[in-house]
Amino acid sequence: MFIPAIKGQGTEEQHEKWLPMAYKMQIIGCYAQTELGHGSNVQGLETTATFDPQTDEFVIHSPTLTSSKWWPGGLGKVSTHAVVYARLITGAQDHGVHGFIVQLRSLDDHSPLPGITVGDIGMKFGSGAYNSMDNGLLRFDHVRIPRNQMLMRVSQVTREGKFVQSDVPRQLVYGTMVYVRQTIVSDASCALARAVCIATRYSAVRRQFGSQNGGPETQVIDYKTQQSRLFPLLASAYAFRFVGEWLKWLYTDVTQRLQANDFSTLPEAHACTAGLKSMTTSVTADAIEECRKLCGGHGYLSNSGLPELFAVYIPTCTYEGDNVVLLLQVARFLMKTVSQLGSGKKPVGTTAYMGRAEHLMQCRCEVERAEDWLKPSVILEAFEARAFRMSIACAKNLSKFSNPEDGFSELSPDLLEAAIAHCQLIVVSKYIEKLQQDIPGKGVKRQLEILCNVYALHLLHKHLGDFVTTSCITPKQGALANEQLRLLYSQVRPNAITLVDAFNYTDHYLGSVLGCYNGNVYQRLYEEAWKDPLNDTVVPDGYLEYVWPILKQHIRTARL
Amino acid sequence: MFIPAIKGQGTEEQHEKWLPMAYKMQIIGCYAQTELGHGSNVQGLETTATFDPQTDEFVIHSPTLTSSKWWPGGLGKVSTHAVVYARLITGAQDHGVHGFIVQLRSLDDHSPLPGITVGDIGMKFGSGAYNSMDNGLLRFDHVRIPRNQMLMRVSQVTREGKFVQSDVPRQLVYGTMVYVRQTIVSDASCALARAVCIATRYSAVRRQFGSQNGGPETQVIDYKTQQSRLFPLLASAYAFRFVGEWLKWLYTDVTQRLQANDFSTLPEAHACTAGLKSMTTSVTADAIEECRKLCGGHGYLSNSGLPELFAVYIPTCTYEGDNVVLLLQVARFLMKTVSQLGSGKKPVGTTAYMGRAEHLMQCRCEVERAEDWLKPSVILEAFEARAFRMSIACAKNLSKFSNPEDGFSELSPDLLEAAIAHCQLIVVSKYIEKLQQDIPGKGVKRQLEILCNVYALHLLHKHLGDFVTTSCITPKQGALANEQLRLLYSQVRPNAITLVDAFNYTDHYLGSVLGCYNGNVYQRLYEEAWKDPLNDTVVPDGYLEYVWPILKQHIRTARL
Repeated sequence: MFIPAIKGQGTEEQHEKWLPMAYKMQIIGCYAQTELGHGSNVQGLETTATFDPQTDEFVIHSPTLTSSKWWPGGLGKVSTHAVVYARLITGAQDHGVHGFIVQLRSLDDHSPLPGITVGDIGMKFGSGAYNSMDNGLLRFDHVRIPRNQMLMRVSQVTREGKFVQSDVPRQLVYGTMVYVRQTIVSDASCALARAVCIATRYSAVRRQFGSQNGGPETQVIDYKTQQSRLFPLLASAYAFRFVGEWLKWLYTDVTQRLQANDFSTLPEAHACTAGLKSMTTSVTADAIEECRKLCGGHGYLSNSGLPELFAVYIPTCTYEGDNVVLLLQVARFLMKTVSQLGSGKKPVGTTAYMGRAEHLMQCRCEVERAEDWLKPSVILEAFEARAFRMSIACAKNLSKFSNPEDGFSELSPDLLEAAIAHCQLIVVSKYIEKLQQDIPGKGVKRQLEILCNVYALHLLHKHLGDFVTTSCITPKQGALANEQLRLLYSQVRPNAITLVDAFNYTDHYLGSVLGCYNGNVYQRLYEEAWKDPLNDTVVPDGYLEYVWPILKQHIRTARL
Repeated sequence: MFIPAIKGQGTEEQHEKWLPMAYKMQIIGCYAQTELGHGSNVQGLETTATFDPQTDEFVIHSPTLTSSKWWPGGLGKVSTHAVVYARLITGAQDHGVHGFIVQLRSLDDHSPLPGITVGDIGMKFGSGAYNSMDNGLLRFDHVRIPRNQMLMRVSQVTREGKFVQSDVPRQLVYGTMVYVRQTIVSDASCALARAVCIATRYSAVRRQFGSQNGGPETQVIDYKTQQSRLFPLLASAYAFRFVGEWLKWLYTDVTQRLQANDFSTLPEAHACTAGLKSMTTSVTADAIEECRKLCGGHGYLSNSGLPELFAVYIPTCTYEGDNVVLLLQVARFLMKTVSQLGSGKKPVGTTAYMGRAEHLMQCRCEVERAEDWLKPSVILEAFEARAFRMSIACAKNLSKFSNPEDGFSELSPDLLEAAIAHCQLIVVSKYIEKLQQDIPGKGVKRQLEILCNVYALHLLHKHLGDFVTTSCITPKQGALANEQLRLLYSQVRPNAITLVDAFNYTDHYLGSVLGCYNGNVYQRLYEEAWKDPLNDTVVPDGYLEYVWPILKQHIRTARL
């Protein structure tokens, strides 16, 4: 069942009030913000809510086709009410976007109320995935609602039609965003762990090539090519888990500060969660598909669990802030931080490293042998220096433009890369911090250290150009990192299965024949196949009616 | 309808014979090679074909669960016959894998013949895609076929059970592989062009942010972040088209040589097509999903055309040779070529550049200003030097191992990267060659030159680490390339729509609301939504039966 969610522009308090109300009133609500022509740019929404002082009502209206609400989950066929985001208009003045509670359907027979056009937007990616959700469209033709159905915590409209801003801090909105995005980071870790668990278990079951003297072939997981694709994803699953845990702490911290009217850390926390939402979901989406490929042909079967996981997961890269738009926000914050470095204002939280500007511009990596890359301090400094120098390079290039906005726009691809470097640094540093704590279980910490190094060094190899062109490391040191990475894979291998078993997913939750715990993959694939309805009959429906006559036809044609 | 295809181990000549025969005999055939436990490693197939000299028959048998045939298209419900690949056994001797024609079902009532177990393997990725294809499973319980149903062009079994190899050159098999893989490269270009066409057209329609003074928002295609993701894919679509055309020529050339018993260019042609199949399909699969993301939320709708294109396309990365396995074959060929450099044996075809070893190890890129990167000779030399030096570095590292196979296995991730560098060089060089020809149409060549530079420079930026650490270019030159790339995007922009219109896809073929030619996207999205069967009724089926009582329940619970 769908319950109303008020997010983004709303506040949690509103959410808390709405939920029991919804139950009591026997309604099903949805959150109607996005429009056919308007997604990322909320301020560009076109739906209007015009106050009519004569009747003390708002008139909700869809003035254009592109103003049709589009995508809200639960809207199409089920919701009876919606929180509709619309431009508030009093007199001739546009006060921007606000929320309004609007009843859509009759509580007697569920039919749409007068002036409401509502329906489903149609099929989506995948065979299941979001196709069980009635993402909907919604149009208003001058629908009237009482004035008290505006969500008025932050702004109010009086009986006389006067627009009043309350003294509730606008920043509260960002607190909700921090909350939602930190849950997305935790979810990314779960989804990634699921895909990695499937691919790792099946890689141990599957054998291919390398048979000697008629013996069994080599387990696919023993191939370095498989390890070099799979183990960095395993390491990422753990890395995202730890950064997700840390984000939970960050949210608590931000909430406590907000309650004390301390907004000082909010911009940094907001940029940090935006960046990590973007980075972790992009990586996870790609990783699920990579895990599918790592399972060979059988990964393409629905019962591998990976197609459905992919189709369900990928919208995460778009919703709650498009990943590219979010990274640009991070970049903007980084450029602001850089510009204030000389002003004595100290960078806080995940940007604190920028306070050591002089050191980070001058430091040289001291790696001489491959094993030097195992030192957390060496890794951390390389990632800090790389992120900082990329930000500084962007700032320098930006300063060449007379109009800063033109510069930001022109250099945006470079700014994205600087933002990613910063986000990767956060994940690496939080992983390293985690390892400074006690970790229960014999030998567990050692395994997590190995994965931490895999995580950092695979990023270093992937973004070698960044590290070398900013002179953070030399080409020789890059080659040593790669050499060390290869050695680390050999250390991950003996515990790879244990490391995915540790996610503790049941076969039922995992939903994958290839990833089943007991490894009895081929027996299960065979059994599952027979359950397909196509196999209920020996001769398929339609064969004798349609295929057979065509075959017969060939004889006749051949005889003519 | 399914027609029999004999590929891989077979030859075209067999194919030509089989086809009219199939029609005349009113049969539907399929190609049954892959087994439940055996895909990439054809030599590991377990199905047996044991010759019985007493009856002059082969006994086809599935000795294990993993020997079940699995995946053949058209096998599950429709095929009456199959070309089955099985281990040929005469006496006690195993002669490896050969092809046998086996009847599976009765031509009277289509029921499976005695000893044959056949069925569908179940659902696959996507809502449509390959789910209309009855990929099947097949088991044999001592099924007997006459001796003359073995495909005997290359090897024969005599009436007495003697195994005889014919003098037909084994290399002919590779000719077929070159053929099949060159068609896959052309198909990659088509699929990529389709995705790019959709994303480019919709990026011109869609507006987001940047509204000034209440005017329209900015077209998404005008954002540099969009351009830097989209235009390299547009350039790749053209690049793959040109290399695909060249591969057609290569296949003709190879065929003519084979007919003249000249096998000298075959290994190089085989490595080249294997590598290009791998590289172009991997890029295309990722690019389709990237194009979907470039369409924002609406890309997730089925009627964007992109989900289906993705689900249909991705198996290409696995079939006809897993992409990683193919790259390792390329790497093996490169290492062999390097090892023969001193021997006086001149590298041919796409490896000819390796003949200029001394120059390529010493040359230094002479770029001083961004526009220097527009010179084809500069680009070509940088790509040649990078590919060559990466191969040489691999060869050097390999020589440190006492057992070459251990070394190859241990260094395989590096070898993959060297193989990719080589494949990218092929595409860049064939594009540059294409531009040396006359190209009709005013200004067309100029546009293709711009795209060629985009293709090369985006690769250079993406693999900057390769170019800089091999000292092919300096960090400064890398930054200049990136600067030039940005300028090129601005030059692509005015003609972007024309460049995708030039693919000349009809709306019907494109199958995408977002990519429709007239750009009337939102109207069409709205109209398409109403066609969804869910919208046939105002109150959805099951609402009153299932949802309504739950809502009512809340009242009763609340009242208790």
